[in-house]
Amino acid sequence: MNVTTGDLARLLDAELLGPAELAIRTFCPIHEAEPGSLTFIRDVQFASAWATSRASCALVTRGVDVPGHDPSARALLIVPNADLALARLMGMFKKTGPTPFVGIHPSAVVAPSARIGAGAGIGPNCTIGERAVIGPGAQLLANVFIGENVRIGDDSVLHPGVVVLENCSIGNRCQLAPGVVVGADGFGYAHSPEGPVKIPHIGGVRIEDDVEIGANTCVDRAKTGDTTIGAQTKIDNLVQIAHNCRIGRAVIICGNSALAGSVRVGDGAMIGGSVKINDGVSIGAGARIGANSGVMNDIPAGENWLGIPASPSREALAQWAAIRRLPRLLQRLRRRSKLDGAAD
Amino acid sequence: MNVTTGDLARLLDAELLGPAELAIRTFCPIHEAEPGSLTFIRDVQFASAWATSRASCALVTRGVDVPGHDPSARALLIVPNADLALARLMGMFKKTGPTPFVGIHPSAVVAPSARIGAGAGIGPNCTIGERAVIGPGAQLLANVFIGENVRIGDDSVLHPGVVVLENCSIGNRCQLAPGVVVGADGFGYAHSPEGPVKIPHIGGVRIEDDVEIGANTCVDRAKTGDTTIGAQTKIDNLVQIAHNCRIGRAVIICGNSALAGSVRVGDGAMIGGSVKINDGVSIGAGARIGANSGVMNDIPAGENWLGIPASPSREALAQWAAIRRLPRLLQRLRRRSKLDGAAD
Amino acid sequence: MNVTTGDLARLLDAELLGPAELAIRTFCPIHEAEPGSLTFIRDVQFASAWATSRASCALVTRGVDVPGHDPSARALLIVPNADLALARLMGMFKKTGPTPFVGIHPSAVVAPSARIGAGAGIGPNCTIGERAVIGPGAQLLANVFIGENVRIGDDSVLHPGVVVLENCSIGNRCQLAPGVVVGADGFGYAHSPEGPVKIPHIGGVRIEDDVEIGANTCVDRAKTGDTTIGAQTKIDNLVQIAHNCRIGRAVIICGNSALAGSVRVGDGAMIGGSVKINDGVSIGAGARIGANSGVMNDIPAGENWLGIPASPSREALAQWAAIRRLPRLLQRLRRRSKLDGAAD
Repeated sequence: MNVTTGDLARLLDAELLGPAELAIRTFCPIHEAEPGSLTFIRDVQFASAWATSRASCALVTRGVDVPGHDPSARALLIVPNADLALARLMGMFKKTGPTPFVGIHPSAVVAPSARIGAGAGIGPNCTIGERAVIGPGAQLLANVFIGENVRIGDDSVLHPGVVVLENCSIGNRCQLAPGVVVGADGFGYAHSPEGPVKIPHIGGVRIEDDVEIGANTCVDRAKTGDTTIGAQTKIDNLVQIAHNCRIGRAVIICGNSALAGSVRVGDGAMIGGSVKINDGVSIGAGARIGANSGVMNDIPAGENWLGIPASPSREALAQWAAIRRLPRLLQRLRRRSKLDGAAD
Repeated sequence: MNVTTGDLARLLDAELLGPAELAIRTFCPIHEAEPGSLTFIRDVQFASAWATSRASCALVTRGVDVPGHDPSARALLIVPNADLALARLMGMFKKTGPTPFVGIHPSAVVAPSARIGAGAGIGPNCTIGERAVIGPGAQLLANVFIGENVRIGDDSVLHPGVVVLENCSIGNRCQLAPGVVVGADGFGYAHSPEGPVKIPHIGGVRIEDDVEIGANTCVDRAKTGDTTIGAQTKIDNLVQIAHNCRIGRAVIICGNSALAGSVRVGDGAMIGGSVKINDGVSIGAGARIGANSGVMNDIPAGENWLGIPASPSREALAQWAAIRRLPRLLQRLRRRSKLDGAAD
Repeated sequence: MNVTTGDLARLLDAELLGPAELAIRTFCPIHEAEPGSLTFIRDVQFASAWATSRASCALVTRGVDVPGHDPSARALLIVPNADLALARLMGMFKKTGPTPFVGIHPSAVVAPSARIGAGAGIGPNCTIGERAVIGPGAQLLANVFIGENVRIGDDSVLHPGVVVLENCSIGNRCQLAPGVVVGADGFGYAHSPEGPVKIPHIGGVRIEDDVEIGANTCVDRAKTGDTTIGAQTKIDNLVQIAHNCRIGRAVIICGNSALAGSVRVGDGAMIGGSVKINDGVSIGAGARIGANSGVMNDIPAGENWLGIPASPSREALAQWAAIRRLPRLLQRLRRRSKLDGAAD
């Protein structure tokens, strides 16, 4: 993106409060924004952060008052809905990635019964298994492995080294970062006197449209049925999604998190970084889990939880505060015990 | 698997208590079982879970009483040993994976001095180094890298993107999921005024028979000698096994766990998900470590530990319960202090 | 390494206190050393560990007294600076890895505008994008993907399956272990009524000289500017370095750690295994963070921190000790309350 605040006003048909010639290079959340970036203000809470934000420009939902705005230095763009305007802009200024390749590279190995859609690109050293279907416009960049009976949706991008094993399906417009593994066997063994015996995993993985999965993340296949990831869900790097998880729509899962077997996550939940969720746990829609938490119990919809073991955030913060005071408390109690002549 | 309870009774020569026509599609532990699945009951504890289990059928060790069984709705198969019967069934109903490929794909690069066993399959874009030995029946699916002097045992399966670096050995009938890395240098540096200086790792990795390793898991080579993984050990996805670890036989290590350098794990230990073990720690045979634990001390054989830092599970649970009550306790003590006129 | 203590004395021009014919095969830190290994003693603390160390030989900085040395059984090599001597020895006895390959393997796919330096090796099934520059002597072993406009420095080694995406740069003499991913998109989304909207990441990754990165570790590209890793920094396996992190020089990051977005780490800091650092946190130069910590606040230079949430190590250890005593304390208080007739 390389535009001015004036360009943006014209593109979005927005009211401009501030200079028209500020250069805008990227979008950023209001607290992380740097000069040259555009942010958005959808409500009073965001508006109160504008004075200290370093962003050069903000999309503002009409009717939201923005205190401390200096129109001689920075620009506001007033629109009917800041979120929608942002989404529209995103569509206009898509990131430039590698130059797309169309066709089948001579080094790729494509099974005779595989079907490759129009405009798709099968890059160097990719392998496509029997009866696989690659949608129109999909990009398999290099060293990608597609197993038998796999379906890759239209316009999805599979970066180098992605592996999608047999009988799994990926929706349209998905992005799989390098090293993603979809469809490895779930981890399940039965005890026997001869040692652990593998439980066969005859299910698959079903990933819906507009899902993004980060580098080296793993999504295991189900014992029976499918491990599922709902549309628009975004998963960061090095995340483990075990067999039979059911992740809803528009869920956010930050890096290094691990969901054990059969975890359920409701729509719109947000899972912070390095969160671990025990097997069988249900996370309600819209719940938020703080970074570094270990979740051992179900979390109701809409609640904020935190800690190891996780509890409602208010309780977790109170526990942390109490633990910080605990060493001194024990000292004091011991002193008092001695004064009282009581045995410790 | 696609059989009836009657088929199973005949195959195992078992006594059938219940309908013969129930369809069975998979095996499952009793608490995770869904209709259509077979489970097993080896003792009273498992038997007590039968009434609430959703399994359609269970293998039962003769002599174990199963309360609440309704033979009009579900089926029990009475056998001399439920575990053994399960192991036998597993052998009969092996999972169907990708169609095996036999021979050397024309795109594979195989060093002249490498030896490829009869019936082995070296798939597209694999690289086999000098003096490597690939056992009969082994499957290297695609994009697999085998370094110099590596040995891959008979009938082992290496999924796409597996890397086994020089001088490491993998046993017979092992399964390495996509993206597994065996033999990367251990992480060891000496301090010097010029900065960290790499400690050379001249050892290897030795993985015994029937080991399974999950997607994107890493097993580092030893400084000297070998990092070893005992027969029948099962390791999940995204696990870190550092240099000079010595893992025993039939150990279970769940996903996202990390074992630092020189950790010892005794036979049959069970390590839950996201468990972190500090360097040099010893885990006794048959010990069990709960999910999300951080282990800083040795764990005696057969004990259950939990928490960060980990302690015997009973103590950890007591500590967690106490921490939950701590904020209120502090409030009360403060109130009482004020009543007493004591300084806080 | 296969030398005697006498050989080492001659190579380093060192004074030998002990037998000249002891065989030395490797270097080790003093607490981990086994017979046949060389260690180093730079100060009194190391010297006090010599009596119980199993090392056969130690480099000793002249002037450091080594109590309990038995020159009939083991050897000391007195040098002006033990660290420097070690660094020199390391240079002499470099680990033998795979036989280097020079040239471009016929199966590699190299874009016409890419530039490959003299003596570089581009192994089987590598892909090199347009305008990429591979430095002299660099080794890309196999299945390595190099995106457009990438720069790989002189003599760097990229192990099998490494992916470096467009517009990133790697310094000289770097080592990237198998499965490392450099330059995947950072994890950033804006909310909109239509769901999460991707924030474009138009920055890159800049890795300086002599950096080593462990297997399957991920370093994400920046939103704008660069994610940077300073010279001589060493990163272990399965580590997540999110967008816009700025890691200083000679930093040590142990396995399974995760640094969220925009984390700053000062020169020479040491980050233990499985440490998680929240986004935007600053770690001062020379700070040390204990294994399994979750860091939610800035850490001043030179301090030792520990715990979840992390606090200065002394405080964390006091808190842990207090928590261990907490269950009994609560029992006692409850008993006393009852004696007092007070309500719980």
